[in-house]
Amino acid sequence: MKFRRSERLVDMTHYLMNHPRELISLSWFVQRYQSAKSSISEDLVIINEMFKHQGIGILQTVPGAAGGVKYFPMVKKEQAADFVKVLCDLIADPDRLLPGGYLYMGDLLGDPKILHEVGKHLAAAVTDKNIDVIMTVATKGIPIAQAVSTFLNVPFVIVRRDTKVTEGPTVTINYVSGSTKRIQTMVLSKRSLKEGSNVLIVDDFMKAGGTIHGMVNLLEEFDASVAGIAVLVESEHVEERLVDDYISLVKLTDVNTREKQINVVEGNYFSKVDHFL
Amino acid sequence: MKFRRSERLVDMTHYLMNHPRELISLSWFVQRYQSAKSSISEDLVIINEMFKHQGIGILQTVPGAAGGVKYFPMVKKEQAADFVKVLCDLIADPDRLLPGGYLYMGDLLGDPKILHEVGKHLAAAVTDKNIDVIMTVATKGIPIAQAVSTFLNVPFVIVRRDTKVTEGPTVTINYVSGSTKRIQTMVLSKRSLKEGSNVLIVDDFMKAGGTIHGMVNLLEEFDASVAGIAVLVESEHVEERLVDDYISLVKLTDVNTREKQINVVEGNYFSKVDHFL
Repeated sequence: MKFRRSERLVDMTHYLMNHPRELISLSWFVQRYQSAKSSISEDLVIINEMFKHQGIGILQTVPGAAGGVKYFPMVKKEQAADFVKVLCDLIADPDRLLPGGYLYMGDLLGDPKILHEVGKHLAAAVTDKNIDVIMTVATKGIPIAQAVSTFLNVPFVIVRRDTKVTEGPTVTINYVSGSTKRIQTMVLSKRSLKEGSNVLIVDDFMKAGGTIHGMVNLLEEFDASVAGIAVLVESEHVEERLVDDYISLVKLTDVNTREKQINVVEGNYFSKVDHFL
Repeated sequence: MKFRRSERLVDMTHYLMNHPRELISLSWFVQRYQSAKSSISEDLVIINEMFKHQGIGILQTVPGAAGGVKYFPMVKKEQAADFVKVLCDLIADPDRLLPGGYLYMGDLLGDPKILHEVGKHLAAAVTDKNIDVIMTVATKGIPIAQAVSTFLNVPFVIVRRDTKVTEGPTVTINYVSGSTKRIQTMVLSKRSLKEGSNVLIVDDFMKAGGTIHGMVNLLEEFDASVAGIAVLVESEHVEERLVDDYISLVKLTDVNTREKQINVVEGNYFSKVDHFL
């Protein structure tokens, strides 16, 4: 079947959105739509312009016989600013306050729209990095890891607190929690991570950074490298931070349980990320 | 700014894909693109035809002043058959075998492409149901719940095995594991689920169904109803199944650790689901 331009644009948009950061050869599209290469090239120009204009991403053309096109999800600076503002307002809701100054975040970490935006913004922040796999720790980091993995098109692995029979052989390390100074355990299935992998570490929350520092140590056991660290929320006012090179979307500056007040400001996202649409 | 049809089609496809099952008024699109309502209607006809043709879904038009358009993700029967075949082959890989006849599934549950397909196929199976929220149990059910939530555009909640300070007040129940007959505990944050919710229960694996039956009991404590049950893998040959009305993508019929053989066939998906594109 031969497709018209209007039809091709619908299907190509759908296809590109589901295959970010993947090289798609023009001849593959030529085959799929029974259309001339020049028509496909024109389609891609239209899509690229619209993706840039609407803050969806960019199409990168790789020339040559082994070439093709790659879709990189990106965001506009205004979109990021708007989303971070929304996040701050959501997190500052005093109803989140729990005894001990903890915050309930289950609603945000189970909201597909919020997760979509978190995933897109964190993925856009590391768009220039070579990442093979995403790593997080159970339970609350999982939705963040999965959301980012969708936009980076790489798998995610889950570090656990305990061993489980369905994990097979595991590597276990002990680490010191940054804020409570307690010894804790971290376990990762041996077969989940290949030697030499470039790993993006993500989590929902970082205080002193003990858990993330633990994941960095765990990576050493796998001869893997840290390609980046990204968190949804960082918490300010800690004596000593165990992790210094990271990206955060928002920063918790103060939690006052007596006054029922939560202060949240933008994280270091805008000082760390310099490539926007 | 005024947009041409080709530009509108790219942006509308992107927008609809990110807002499944959500009513979008035509006047919203009219405003967004500064185009006539008749042009928008024609655009939607093109998108609907292409979505159906390529196995993406359907657009449902709601007439009247409060009307608009809704995108329902759906699949073709051949797509589902192809995907289930791929899943069977992946799961039958003897390298998954662990002592005790357990299967390693971490790679599949961390693969964004697989999760995308699982989410789409399970969501398509319950497309005619009224679902407010998805429920699963930590840890391995989470990726499935999140994947389905993306296509149903509803939040997901996570049942845990233990209480955690960041969950706030919780409801705890005990239940009997179907296969090991042991008493186990299940905990859900009180604020995570509203009374009267229609809940889709999902999980990665179901043997006798004890865990899922536990979630059904937990729903009663929240005065919530079961809108459906969907699992990635069901295991055959159990004396008594505690859950009977469910959808499974694949079925594990035999695991022979001595011969290193895993037999996997299609689940009840095709006998339970009757609406395909």
